[in-house]
Amino acid sequence: MLAAKLNAVTKTMSANNIDYIILSPSENLFYLTELDILQDERMHLMVISAAGNITFIVPAMSKELVEKASIDAPILAWDDGDDPVELVAEVIKAESTAKIAVDDKMWSQHLISIQPLYPQAVFTPASQVMSQVRIIKAKDEQEKLAQVAAIADQVMEQIISEIEVGQTEQQVAARIEVLFKEFGADDISFKPIVAAGENASVPHHRPSAKVLQDGDFVILDLGGKLKGYCSDITRTIALGEPAAEMKKVYAVVKEAQEAACQGVAPGRPCSDIDALARDVISGHGYGELFVHRTGHGIGIDIHEEPYIVETNKRKLEPGMAFSIEPGIYVPGKFGVRIEDIVIVGEAGFNRLNNFTRELIRK
Amino acid sequence: MLAAKLNAVTKTMSANNIDYIILSPSENLFYLTELDILQDERMHLMVISAAGNITFIVPAMSKELVEKASIDAPILAWDDGDDPVELVAEVIKAESTAKIAVDDKMWSQHLISIQPLYPQAVFTPASQVMSQVRIIKAKDEQEKLAQVAAIADQVMEQIISEIEVGQTEQQVAARIEVLFKEFGADDISFKPIVAAGENASVPHHRPSAKVLQDGDFVILDLGGKLKGYCSDITRTIALGEPAAEMKKVYAVVKEAQEAACQGVAPGRPCSDIDALARDVISGHGYGELFVHRTGHGIGIDIHEEPYIVETNKRKLEPGMAFSIEPGIYVPGKFGVRIEDIVIVGEAGFNRLNNFTRELIRK
Repeated sequence: MLAAKLNAVTKTMSANNIDYIILSPSENLFYLTELDILQDERMHLMVISAAGNITFIVPAMSKELVEKASIDAPILAWDDGDDPVELVAEVIKAESTAKIAVDDKMWSQHLISIQPLYPQAVFTPASQVMSQVRIIKAKDEQEKLAQVAAIADQVMEQIISEIEVGQTEQQVAARIEVLFKEFGADDISFKPIVAAGENASVPHHRPSAKVLQDGDFVILDLGGKLKGYCSDITRTIALGEPAAEMKKVYAVVKEAQEAACQGVAPGRPCSDIDALARDVISGHGYGELFVHRTGHGIGIDIHEEPYIVETNKRKLEPGMAFSIEPGIYVPGKFGVRIEDIVIVGEAGFNRLNNFTRELIRK
Repeated sequence: MLAAKLNAVTKTMSANNIDYIILSPSENLFYLTELDILQDERMHLMVISAAGNITFIVPAMSKELVEKASIDAPILAWDDGDDPVELVAEVIKAESTAKIAVDDKMWSQHLISIQPLYPQAVFTPASQVMSQVRIIKAKDEQEKLAQVAAIADQVMEQIISEIEVGQTEQQVAARIEVLFKEFGADDISFKPIVAAGENASVPHHRPSAKVLQDGDFVILDLGGKLKGYCSDITRTIALGEPAAEMKKVYAVVKEAQEAACQGVAPGRPCSDIDALARDVISGHGYGELFVHRTGHGIGIDIHEEPYIVETNKRKLEPGMAFSIEPGIYVPGKFGVRIEDIVIVGEAGFNRLNNFTRELIRK
């Protein structure tokens, strides 16, 4: 498994003239090694050379954890109080013109401590390599995405059955987290978004003490993690009878989401899928209120390549997995978003979320 | 509030010849603004100049969220698909020799996209400034730390009352997360560590499917978050009757932890506190098995300054808050760690965790 993935990594490194990749605890590290380590102020690195040589540099207290992964590579351990950068200098013997790819999510404090060793080197995000390797999901990855999407559908159904006027956004969000565990997920893939009434006009609203009220639209955006893979689904429900404008906006978002889904097929640029959703929304006069891209790739990361955005001309290929989640946000009043995950098939697409997209009134 | 904090920041910037600070969504941003935003691939920045001018650069979809914080500063918004770095160039008009401080946890992908704008500038971690401002906890911060420590004590008592042979580490960890919500925390401050038997010999073990067994030591390391502030407590309990070596090691760790706590007083270097714990453990012949520092500062961050480590000669001052958590890890067999949070007082110290440190048998 590691050998095949490593081969893909070094090939892509070579195509991009990259001499070294430095990974920190991240989804990239998990993808290659299944090591599930949290990033913190202690430097943990996996260095991969263009020749495919691997070296780990980790705090002494993490050595046993890395050894358990049984990867045939030296593990250099440093003690609290020592400077791990000295070990980096031993491992990366870079030419002055080296190109060094760095994990996109590596904390800047670590990058800043490494950069002075290589003042002439060019540093570039590791996604230049890792995204290319990870963007096409293998069969086993597609199965994991389908499994965790099914759990998200179950959680959505359950939380909607429980939701009531009088609960707070925070209570609903806390319950969603519990439900993911109850339905068998390992974890949540991101903090649930529960946004009611005017709060729903902020796309990434954090759940607050706001009490759900009759007449509110409530956006529920949630996802779980299973065996390292993520799910992500959004539905918008009505508490009581929504106003006429709210029903109209809901219908527009639903139409836009469906149009974008139906457009998914190999060979089509990502920007086309974005345009399919955006054209529906603009056609109804709400273009200015659709303030984000139509979707994002999903896999081990909750957000990864391919991004479904106007500027991304990359063509879809079988095995790509991403969200389709148009929304309309009426400032200070309400918001609507509907989201499913799709996987590009040999022809057309496979939708992983099957919970109803009809407007539910509670 | 912001004005006073901003004043402390610009003073410290000046003392360190720093021209700009760039903060990303982080604890530093929360400390200054109470903005609770998650970092992701979309660039969100708060730029502070040496003169104290603030500018936000955020995705359009986050603009309303930042506006709600009511900070008197321009908010420059960029649309999905646009390049936010162009806005950075407009805001930071740095001299070629500028010193730019960057949020320690800012993802490297964002730093790498900014650095080419300022090829001669020196980039340095923002903690150089922010840690100095944050290291002394104000009265209201100390109260929040005490509140959330009390919740951690309650969760510890409750989970120990529920724990049984036959449960898995993962089940116990999931229950801990639920308990923090039930006891009134806003969130957990880190994923609970539940490490049983030989797993406890890995200090940062992630909870696994391992079933708790009679004769195991179980390390429980857990913490909650309340109003932005963190707690962190560790206890090690016995399932059934521990072996003689286990009891001996437990007594050594308990003695070491108590010795370090009793040594806390203003004017004493952090390294002294580390030595107090380490000397006890080494004196009993276990020095090689205490593989980490004695503690870490705590506040909005779960790990922050001051670090209680051999190389940190900084002197303790009233209002500093940190953990004291020595441990002994016997490879492949078992581990013991005991941890409390203390705050340095005008004389001596105030221990925030009061749950018993006597060995509990279940």
